[in-house]
Amino acid sequence: MTEVRKRRESDGKLLESAESDHIDSEDDKTTKASTDLSGTIPSGTDKAPGLLEWLVRDLPDRWRNWAVRAIFSLVMIGFFFLVIYGGPLALMITTLVVQVKCFQEIINIGYAVYRIHGLPWFRSLSWYFLLTSNYFFYGESLVDYFGVVINRTEGLRFLVAYHRFISFSLYCGGFVWFVLSLVKKYYMKQFSLFAWTHVALLIVVTQSYLIIKNIFEGLIWFIVPVSMIICNDIMAYVFGFFFGKTPLIKLSPKKTWEGFIGGGISTVFFGLGISYVMCQYPYFVCPIEYSETLGRMTMECEPSSLFRLQGYSLPVWLGWLRIFGLSDTMYLYPFMLHSLALSLFSSVIGPFGGFFASGFKRAFKIKDFGDVIPGHGGIMDRFDCQFLMATFVNVYISSFIQTDSPQKLLSQVLYLKAEQQLQLFHMLRESLENRNILAPAN
Amino acid sequence: MTEVRKRRESDGKLLESAESDHIDSEDDKTTKASTDLSGTIPSGTDKAPGLLEWLVRDLPDRWRNWAVRAIFSLVMIGFFFLVIYGGPLALMITTLVVQVKCFQEIINIGYAVYRIHGLPWFRSLSWYFLLTSNYFFYGESLVDYFGVVINRTEGLRFLVAYHRFISFSLYCGGFVWFVLSLVKKYYMKQFSLFAWTHVALLIVVTQSYLIIKNIFEGLIWFIVPVSMIICNDIMAYVFGFFFGKTPLIKLSPKKTWEGFIGGGISTVFFGLGISYVMCQYPYFVCPIEYSETLGRMTMECEPSSLFRLQGYSLPVWLGWLRIFGLSDTMYLYPFMLHSLALSLFSSVIGPFGGFFASGFKRAFKIKDFGDVIPGHGGIMDRFDCQFLMATFVNVYISSFIQTDSPQKLLSQVLYLKAEQQLQLFHMLRESLENRNILAPAN
Repeated sequence: MTEVRKRRESDGKLLESAESDHIDSEDDKTTKASTDLSGTIPSGTDKAPGLLEWLVRDLPDRWRNWAVRAIFSLVMIGFFFLVIYGGPLALMITTLVVQVKCFQEIINIGYAVYRIHGLPWFRSLSWYFLLTSNYFFYGESLVDYFGVVINRTEGLRFLVAYHRFISFSLYCGGFVWFVLSLVKKYYMKQFSLFAWTHVALLIVVTQSYLIIKNIFEGLIWFIVPVSMIICNDIMAYVFGFFFGKTPLIKLSPKKTWEGFIGGGISTVFFGLGISYVMCQYPYFVCPIEYSETLGRMTMECEPSSLFRLQGYSLPVWLGWLRIFGLSDTMYLYPFMLHSLALSLFSSVIGPFGGFFASGFKRAFKIKDFGDVIPGHGGIMDRFDCQFLMATFVNVYISSFIQTDSPQKLLSQVLYLKAEQQLQLFHMLRESLENRNILAPAN
Repeated sequence: MTEVRKRRESDGKLLESAESDHIDSEDDKTTKASTDLSGTIPSGTDKAPGLLEWLVRDLPDRWRNWAVRAIFSLVMIGFFFLVIYGGPLALMITTLVVQVKCFQEIINIGYAVYRIHGLPWFRSLSWYFLLTSNYFFYGESLVDYFGVVINRTEGLRFLVAYHRFISFSLYCGGFVWFVLSLVKKYYMKQFSLFAWTHVALLIVVTQSYLIIKNIFEGLIWFIVPVSMIICNDIMAYVFGFFFGKTPLIKLSPKKTWEGFIGGGISTVFFGLGISYVMCQYPYFVCPIEYSETLGRMTMECEPSSLFRLQGYSLPVWLGWLRIFGLSDTMYLYPFMLHSLALSLFSSVIGPFGGFFASGFKRAFKIKDFGDVIPGHGGIMDRFDCQFLMATFVNVYISSFIQTDSPQKLLSQVLYLKAEQQLQLFHMLRESLENRNILAPAN
């Protein structure tokens, strides 16, 4: 969530508590069920673990919170570096763990809202749905990328061939289980939680599937967007903290226009910089592919043209930049231009993911999604914008970057029966010859 | 919904009203909002339109309802034949119309539950989401099947190339619109309806997209499953009506084991029969494909082996069937064996779609989803099982039937740049030569 806090935080707090009174008095019966949520959902506190508490003991209150928050931001960023160092597998496992935590936090709120004491099977059911949908989505990408390998292992072949059928059967099992678990006096709660579970799956599982797909396109497609959101969060907080005056949106009274704009501009420059650095390393730019010749996954490649320096002549209307010593022809990685689109999205639309989460928390009158990260709240509080961003990156790649690679299509062709492969071969030859791309065989 | 009514219907009614009292007293605050739904949702009545009312005027009450119901079943089946006669386009348009009606019925219940008077923008927002998700899903299948054609039309090319990007932008527009429309005193209702809308989209739009995809695989993949569900509905009703004694599930007190089993057995035989007939007509079995040579969509083909008579020898343990005059070798269309799987699903798991819908209606205390079809209720009351079935058929095809056809892969190859097509060609040649499928060129 973009954290753009106003300087006079105490005012903000007053404002907030005034508001919640207001909600209590105006909301009607539908929301009454949630009024006693405080206490049932573990909320973030500014309490820090022992050692840290001792370190910041002499700071005034306001600065102490600030310090805890800053320290844990650094801890998380350090962890992020560690995971990147660990490589794609570590990244995917982290994504999975974050996804499960987020699901848990969302579903726990549902439990608290509908007070499920005695609701038969509900906890097991929602975890079962999480399991089956992960089996489906992770399976889909594993089949896509490791299909050739898995097909070689006799015992696993049916898992690839019937992946969708198995997933759907598992889902149907859960569906039937849900229907059989319906109990007269809980109908309404059970259906509400069923819907709640499915919306949580929609937000959490599908998007983490897209994140995995982005990782396969090359680590840069994961690291740049994620760090853009982090940068935007931090810089918006910093700008808001020092210059924040004008409130941005009623939903989050601590966010200011100054933070929003400062964060946005910082993100654009940050994006250009980090892209420039990362484009130079094959480790970051190469897609993760299965190499037939090596017989294993590789991240080595001849970087595509996106990641090779290219001369751009300065447009006329930017001619005045020459006084800063810029030459007429600039050498850029084309990816850097794409990074502009990403940073624009992450700083303009991205924060709406945060507003959405704030609104949600206000609707159910909780402060945070959890208390896992001191000074920050739950995992979901930190990742609310990442989800929207993942989808954007995925859509962006499929629309503007990726055309099917010959390798990927070839692996699809090799799934065909031998005579069909031959048929395709002849059709392709004919088509290529007709268009004079291939000299006709005589 | 599988309609397995008990013979002593008056008992059933007593039972039902006793139950709803029970619900009222035991449900807690969360459900209170829905207690005044009666009247706000138009419910099905046994009232028939004028002429029909006059025709059945002399029948006793019980038979009058039966007659109205039967007549409108026939009307719907007649309409179904008409649409099939109209061809794939008519089927797709009907699917779209049914989908919109179902969405409307579900969303109207949401409006009634959360009483949205004064909720800003909500009606427009949910219809906007319906529009964007249809744009996305219908676009996806149009791009799949008509991509080549659309690519030829200059003005439309960008719609194909950027389809996902456009859809996602439209969705983001709706998302931002939703966040901006949040009003303090309605937070909870707004989020609940947002979730409600998305679950409705998940049920209605994604599944009707799968139905369209099934139609493209050949009309038989649409007509056989749909008519199986219809057959199962009717036969379960008939068996339940005449022989029903043992209650099947508490959720729908009118359904009986006799109806469930009778319906199931009828469906298996019906499925075998209808498959046998339809397999003989290319119109039903040919996939709908774009023909490069004809320059238009065609439904003509050399039927695949699925739809060609094949001899099966009678298994030993069925040898006793010979006394009925069966010969040792039976000639069947392989599709008929697949129809067994379809009929099994439609009569065992299919009804759970109906139970789910009953449970939902009970949870929100409504009798029917609407009043469009006299004697039946709303469109959703008739189509609740069709949705689950559509997904099953789609998954079944992709797991057991369809391997990518050479034609479909070729059209993907032709999307590549010329030099990549050439690269793929050489890679494929090499691979084919290595495996001795193609004689090496000297």
